[in-house]
Amino acid sequence: MTQSSPARSWVASANGHADFPLQNLPLGVFSVDGGALRSGVAIGERIFDLQAALHAGLFDGTARQAVEAMAGGQLNGFFDLGRDARVALRERLLELLREDSPLRGKVEEAKLLLLAADCQMHLPARINDYTDFYVGIEHAQNVGKLFRPDNPLLPNYKYVPIGYHGRASTIRPSGTEVRRPKGQTLPAGQTEPTFGPCARLDYELELGIWIGKGNALGEPIPIGDAAEHIGGFCLLNDWSARDIQAWEYQPLGPFLSKSFLTSISPWVVTAEALEPFRRPQPTRPEGDPQPLPYLLDTRDQAGGAFDIELEVLLLTEAMVEQNLPAQRLTLSNTQYMYWTVAQMVAHHSVNGCQLQAGDLFGSGTLSGPENHQFGSLLEITEGGKKPIELASGEVRRFLEDGDEIILRARCRREGFASIGFGECRGKILPAR
Amino acid sequence: MTQSSPARSWVASANGHADFPLQNLPLGVFSVDGGALRSGVAIGERIFDLQAALHAGLFDGTARQAVEAMAGGQLNGFFDLGRDARVALRERLLELLREDSPLRGKVEEAKLLLLAADCQMHLPARINDYTDFYVGIEHAQNVGKLFRPDNPLLPNYKYVPIGYHGRASTIRPSGTEVRRPKGQTLPAGQTEPTFGPCARLDYELELGIWIGKGNALGEPIPIGDAAEHIGGFCLLNDWSARDIQAWEYQPLGPFLSKSFLTSISPWVVTAEALEPFRRPQPTRPEGDPQPLPYLLDTRDQAGGAFDIELEVLLLTEAMVEQNLPAQRLTLSNTQYMYWTVAQMVAHHSVNGCQLQAGDLFGSGTLSGPENHQFGSLLEITEGGKKPIELASGEVRRFLEDGDEIILRARCRREGFASIGFGECRGKILPAR
Repeated sequence: MTQSSPARSWVASANGHADFPLQNLPLGVFSVDGGALRSGVAIGERIFDLQAALHAGLFDGTARQAVEAMAGGQLNGFFDLGRDARVALRERLLELLREDSPLRGKVEEAKLLLLAADCQMHLPARINDYTDFYVGIEHAQNVGKLFRPDNPLLPNYKYVPIGYHGRASTIRPSGTEVRRPKGQTLPAGQTEPTFGPCARLDYELELGIWIGKGNALGEPIPIGDAAEHIGGFCLLNDWSARDIQAWEYQPLGPFLSKSFLTSISPWVVTAEALEPFRRPQPTRPEGDPQPLPYLLDTRDQAGGAFDIELEVLLLTEAMVEQNLPAQRLTLSNTQYMYWTVAQMVAHHSVNGCQLQAGDLFGSGTLSGPENHQFGSLLEITEGGKKPIELASGEVRRFLEDGDEIILRARCRREGFASIGFGECRGKILPAR
Repeated sequence: MTQSSPARSWVASANGHADFPLQNLPLGVFSVDGGALRSGVAIGERIFDLQAALHAGLFDGTARQAVEAMAGGQLNGFFDLGRDARVALRERLLELLREDSPLRGKVEEAKLLLLAADCQMHLPARINDYTDFYVGIEHAQNVGKLFRPDNPLLPNYKYVPIGYHGRASTIRPSGTEVRRPKGQTLPAGQTEPTFGPCARLDYELELGIWIGKGNALGEPIPIGDAAEHIGGFCLLNDWSARDIQAWEYQPLGPFLSKSFLTSISPWVVTAEALEPFRRPQPTRPEGDPQPLPYLLDTRDQAGGAFDIELEVLLLTEAMVEQNLPAQRLTLSNTQYMYWTVAQMVAHHSVNGCQLQAGDLFGSGTLSGPENHQFGSLLEITEGGKKPIELASGEVRRFLEDGDEIILRARCRREGFASIGFGECRGKILPAR
């Protein structure tokens, strides 16, 4: 089955599900009642228990290897198997879960479908290294304007997929609360810093990319091979303490302003599920340089970009009290990436840097050109100068204690089932 | 036994050994003939096999727990036990290996002492996250001068222990060869970058710090508790591609210019071995600000700095051909650290960032104020402008293929046995 022949599942909640219809089948790691970590697949309101299905004898050959490699509640070994294992598992899951599956009885008998609401989601993999890129050109321009109104983009931006190393130990799955960090900040007009709770706490809307197969030290991944090294996708909120960042980041980049927490959606959406939502790279504006040869690949140009709608919602405590729904702050799209994921992989490894299965990339904030598409409050409020008014009657310059930020994604295309990523949520707790 | 009562070992090569007398007892991970990874202790020209000693029944109580926690050829579990386990193991090793030990026969009978020359050293721990600091103030000033002659130090330097996240996956033990990286560079006077092998390859002389016990997410480590979280020390060479760095590093810091390789000496020198070489923090120059309260601790001020001599040697292929010894490029000291290790730990975690056992810190380049104390060629040759002449008749602006860089350290104090760190070596291979 390809996505172009929309199919239904015998799992009723999957059909028409906003995130997890049969066409998605994202992978994740879950537990029940504090028990052992297990790998599973999201299908509608359910989680299909892969380890239990393995024990029930439902997998053979490459698909069996794929599930065996997930032992221990981590997808690292599975990621390292590359594309073939992922495709074999997907094909088998489609056989098992499609509406007319002759195996339905076996799946039901073995009780392989758990209610997602009864499960706790975990990080899908051990993250060895986390790299945050900066490929959202609209964001780079918006932020650059705050510092350099006449020359917002630095000279390297259109040549180098800019990125930096992030903190891997503080990446957590959706739902983890966000303790407001303390740190040094330089009050306006002062020359000496003070220490205290961050007063300019912000979100950043990003696409997360899971590295699949790794490469050996010293052996770059050619751009044409990059797809084999991409394991899947998620949503990522790069929580940012703007006041700490402004004081600390010169000359070596952001550090404590980001390392207190990074939230991700726990389901790994595969390249196969996203296939229908690929699109050609946007044409570079007149005058922009061509990418250097190591970043250039005709297949990547033809289909290396994605059309994924990205959304940020804010739910304040006052909204909860007033029974108001979460309010949308941002509606953007992955099309605002100046560099593709394949270009990010080729660039990251071109110096011989070793990528490992389960490494995570962030895209950088994916803002669009319009104000309602801005992927951070820094951009929306112009650094706090233009507060936004909320339906609850409140205003926000930056995030306040009790605020919850919710990221969502949606892929839509005529003739194809829509799929989503599930949510990436985080609620702000007061500083200790 | 304390270091103040110098003692001899029945392991003859230990007595007077430049690096590994009885007073040092650094920990590491080794293998023999491609066999399983085992933990060991360096003593003279020998490695004491801890796993074999455990099986021979030589450890009890806390010392036994310490060695058991090293199972699997990684010190992470041991690091996480904290100071008490480290001290108990050290006390027991001193009992076993001192000259008059009644247990000498048992150790010899069990064949626990291997020739170090027959062993292969490995990384001592799984490194989850690697952070490189910038606490060498002379280096910061030297590098700053190249860019901002009138104002070399940025305003945050004397308030913030500046650091950034490095790449953990490409840290390798001494002896790993250094493949010259390729990347984008901007030729002088041009506006468009080219792609090719790095032409300005450099070393950086740093102290490495192993994190011991970790902290929970959201729970900062007070500076007074930092010692409990420091597992040991090593030498670190932060290989740097200066031309790639200059083009890529704005605005988010160094990335591919560093991530191709970082070399470390494989032995973990403990805080206990370094105790006699502690010294008070140097008095801050008149006019420098006091550290903010979270970075201030009287015990740290009294003994938080170290007097460790650091050396860089260059061995070129011509020197080898001419039977010349390696030539010293740098003789510096840890006293040029503007911030102590305890201040680095307190700062890193003050925002709630989780440190984990086996995390590695680099100090940043530790240059002294004089030219012969500069910890990188960038500083020694003023960015390549003033080449150095070598005893072999060669000149160097930056490193050439075939050059080998050797880092060493030595701790000396009247009335105490000198100890060292062992070597951190790396030889440059041509670009692929």
